[in-house]
Amino acid sequence: MKEAERISRLGTETAFNVSAEAGAFAALGNKMYPFHLGDMNIKTPANIIEAAVKALNDGKTGYCNNAGIPQLREALAEDINASHGTQYSMDNVSIQPGGKPVIGKFIMALMNPGDEVIYPNPGYPIYESQIEFNGGKAAPYGFVEGALNFAIDIDMIENSITRQTKALILNDMQNPTGAECSMVELEKLAELALKHDLYVLCDEAYFDVRYDGPGRSFVSIPGMADRCVILYTFSKKFAMTGWRLGAAVGPKNIIEVISKLNVNHESCSNHFIQYAAIEAIKGPQMEARKILDTLRLRRDTAAGLLNSIKGVKCFKPKGTFYLYPNITEAAQKIWARNYEEFRKNALQRTGVSICSRAHFGRQFEGEREWYIRLAYSGIDVAEIKEGLAKFKAFLEG
Amino acid sequence: MKEAERISRLGTETAFNVSAEAGAFAALGNKMYPFHLGDMNIKTPANIIEAAVKALNDGKTGYCNNAGIPQLREALAEDINASHGTQYSMDNVSIQPGGKPVIGKFIMALMNPGDEVIYPNPGYPIYESQIEFNGGKAAPYGFVEGALNFAIDIDMIENSITRQTKALILNDMQNPTGAECSMVELEKLAELALKHDLYVLCDEAYFDVRYDGPGRSFVSIPGMADRCVILYTFSKKFAMTGWRLGAAVGPKNIIEVISKLNVNHESCSNHFIQYAAIEAIKGPQMEARKILDTLRLRRDTAAGLLNSIKGVKCFKPKGTFYLYPNITEAAQKIWARNYEEFRKNALQRTGVSICSRAHFGRQFEGEREWYIRLAYSGIDVAEIKEGLAKFKAFLEG
Repeated sequence: MKEAERISRLGTETAFNVSAEAGAFAALGNKMYPFHLGDMNIKTPANIIEAAVKALNDGKTGYCNNAGIPQLREALAEDINASHGTQYSMDNVSIQPGGKPVIGKFIMALMNPGDEVIYPNPGYPIYESQIEFNGGKAAPYGFVEGALNFAIDIDMIENSITRQTKALILNDMQNPTGAECSMVELEKLAELALKHDLYVLCDEAYFDVRYDGPGRSFVSIPGMADRCVILYTFSKKFAMTGWRLGAAVGPKNIIEVISKLNVNHESCSNHFIQYAAIEAIKGPQMEARKILDTLRLRRDTAAGLLNSIKGVKCFKPKGTFYLYPNITEAAQKIWARNYEEFRKNALQRTGVSICSRAHFGRQFEGEREWYIRLAYSGIDVAEIKEGLAKFKAFLEG
Repeated sequence: MKEAERISRLGTETAFNVSAEAGAFAALGNKMYPFHLGDMNIKTPANIIEAAVKALNDGKTGYCNNAGIPQLREALAEDINASHGTQYSMDNVSIQPGGKPVIGKFIMALMNPGDEVIYPNPGYPIYESQIEFNGGKAAPYGFVEGALNFAIDIDMIENSITRQTKALILNDMQNPTGAECSMVELEKLAELALKHDLYVLCDEAYFDVRYDGPGRSFVSIPGMADRCVILYTFSKKFAMTGWRLGAAVGPKNIIEVISKLNVNHESCSNHFIQYAAIEAIKGPQMEARKILDTLRLRRDTAAGLLNSIKGVKCFKPKGTFYLYPNITEAAQKIWARNYEEFRKNALQRTGVSICSRAHFGRQFEGEREWYIRLAYSGIDVAEIKEGLAKFKAFLEG
């Protein structure tokens, strides 16, 4: 097979390999603690499931509009306006089969081959993959670890902007670090976007997975709604990961291009589950709050236990369902030579399955601090306690 | 907005404009007969809906494998082997959010910029759009109208093959003509594929929408399964258009690349509806046969009425849910100057909403015969009779 050259530039999520390895380990009869993937072991709220069943029985099984059903586009625009202070209407919303499709479509719509796109590293690996697959130059920016948060390395962004820079990817409430931007950071980024005429992909996959009151979106800063596309997803807030439903929200002309990409790639997103999504947004929010409560307890449990381990330092994020502890000292103590060795040893010796910094982008030269990423979206509190007790014993020897 | 250059090469389905125009016409209180779009006004069989509901209630709402759940991939491989005489296993199957995504992924996986891909014209407009969007050269082939069928213009294919030709797109049981390849045609195409080392996209969207016993797939010809990717869809056979579920079926190494594209574009297809798809394949087939019976009666009714119109000649296809009558004489008689004038007049004067040859690719120079396309998937027999009686009166004036 002579595959096309572009395929050589296509990345992947190496976390799926971790998942396969953990699955194989468990299949041998070993006790395994799944901290590796951001899937959820929480049920989709019953009212949302009922709305899907009703739509199915009502015959919403034919095609719908390429951009999604108007009622959902309207409901989502209103919902986002309420939390973001924006003025979106249904024309600003294109429904997608998941949040992920927004990444590729944003890049296809706006980036020419040879253009540069600035993206977070560590970060969700699909950004880099889609930039390079579509012929762009992926310019990474890092984070600086502080006492209570990770801060975006704004200097690094500023230094990497060139005349070819077309766009910036911002994942506020970030995977893997869990970091949230300060207002100072957001304003500095907005300044750069204006100065250098950059489009911004605001990946807000975790915007509503916030334990500490409402967050503030980058698009609420004056001038930003004109140049930002929001990646919205129903996956995390409503425990709907496997439903595959999300949206691109942004300026009307960009959204029209994105919907035209839908004509070519998918026709439309699944019709009947869009009625379930309306129920998710407009129906009672009690279950969504319960999901947050469940996740908050897991976060507190896991962060507390990690911080009790000698040589591990874990910042407790205000949102996401990830923890990104610094394990530099602990890793040195057990003579780990590299991330994969550390990860495999942890799995084999304790059953704790994790990802590491290495699954979230190419490491920068001279990186000295070591980090692992734990997801607590797919593991209950009792298992978190049991698994991390073993992990502690493993690291403290 | 400075959209990326590639967007200027992105086509669309102009049939959606026809749909919007027809909708607006009906919204004014006019009686409208929807022959324009291939959507279905037939319900998805109840056992399939029940299987989706069960999977929802069983909590199949988290992510699944990028390539789909193994049970569905296995079931589909077996089903296709039974009708195609192939030896596929689950490794040859990648589940997709619809049949359409297979078109773009086939091209992205195999075609380099500058490569040529040969595609049918008239044909489904997304072929040409995806070839050009991804930087290829789209080389069209036409059809020759016979007494009982349309035949592929094999000479045209042979003459357009160059050293840059990478792939051929074959849509046996074709949209819009309804044409089915003869064995002689299939064998000639296989010979060309072997001689010129071409990959073939076999768009089999209508393979099972056949009223006259089982069809024969191009991949059943020796040597072809190694170079063909089948576009499979659940949409038509099971009246599941709005569910958005299909599959790419082909050589393992190409399927792996396609699934890697899924990692980047969609993560996975909707999880719980894959259980419904297993029921569709393995459950009782009575309802699928009833769908065929319904469509057959519509075909016979519509083809008979069209052939009763002076100056209209309509071949009756063995499958698909399209008719592609030659209206050259009738159009001359009413002094139609072009396709769009004809179509708009028909809608305004009779309420009959149709597509024409112009919606299925750029016309060749010197094309003298006129064709329109009628879909009967979304209109009942009584409405077919009423609408086409008005259409007859309009044309016979």
